[in-house]
Amino acid sequence: MACELCDQDGGLLIWRGPKLRVIRVDDAAFPGFYRVIWNAHVAEWTDLEPADRSHLMQTVAKVETLVRAHLKPTKVNLASLGNVVPHLHWHVIARFAADSHFPNPIWGQAVREASPDVLKACRDALPALDQALVASLSQG
Amino acid sequence: MACELCDQDGGLLIWRGPKLRVIRVDDAAFPGFYRVIWNAHVAEWTDLEPADRSHLMQTVAKVETLVRAHLKPTKVNLASLGNVVPHLHWHVIARFAADSHFPNPIWGQAVREASPDVLKACRDALPALDQALVASLSQG
Repeated sequence: MACELCDQDGGLLIWRGPKLRVIRVDDAAFPGFYRVIWNAHVAEWTDLEPADRSHLMQTVAKVETLVRAHLKPTKVNLASLGNVVPHLHWHVIARFAADSHFPNPIWGQAVREASPDVLKACRDALPALDQALVASLSQG
Repeated sequence: MACELCDQDGGLLIWRGPKLRVIRVDDAAFPGFYRVIWNAHVAEWTDLEPADRSHLMQTVAKVETLVRAHLKPTKVNLASLGNVVPHLHWHVIARFAADSHFPNPIWGQAVREASPDVLKACRDALPALDQALVASLSQG
């Protein structure tokens, strides 16, 4: 069975390790959107051994920590759904009070036009954030 | 500031420990829906010390493991959003191919009438699952 997260990076590759990778999602409405993707094809988080599960979550925590430091979001949203692509990945999404959907989940109803200033400030902060992520993730 | 997850259990209380509790959500469309709620009022997962963060995720893993064993869902969905109630909690949601929204997130568009048989089978399995959760969580 073809799986797009087996065949492709799944976004802009920020960092790849032996077990997982971090990509940035190209989403105009939610520019501060990263995914931590397990390299091997497993469907559920608890399919992993506890040590791997912990390694994955420590990586999610590193991404969340740097997203908060660089983007100052109103809230971070974390999710592992995988209904469409059942290949284990975690969403780390910077949410802003002035984004198009807040406080709804990004999968829910839009409630406003997003503030162009907020989106631009977020986009402008991404290069430094990407660089900080590479530095943090490379430390293992 | 009033916070509903400080003031109330936030659902049917399954188990309460010193740091966190597990509740079952009363949702007719998604009967296999639990939340792991941090007792103290913190907003973000990375507001916790690493040891607490790990304790929380190990609890989420226990819930996911038993949800899978008892309900045999098509997929488990995990999420920590907190845009509306910024008090740290994790959703653990059993999803079925025949539920009203699959493969959309539960916060997205419904795509069908849910299968009454699938919902009933899930509901019927809840008492044994709740009991297994209490046993597992009480072991610490």
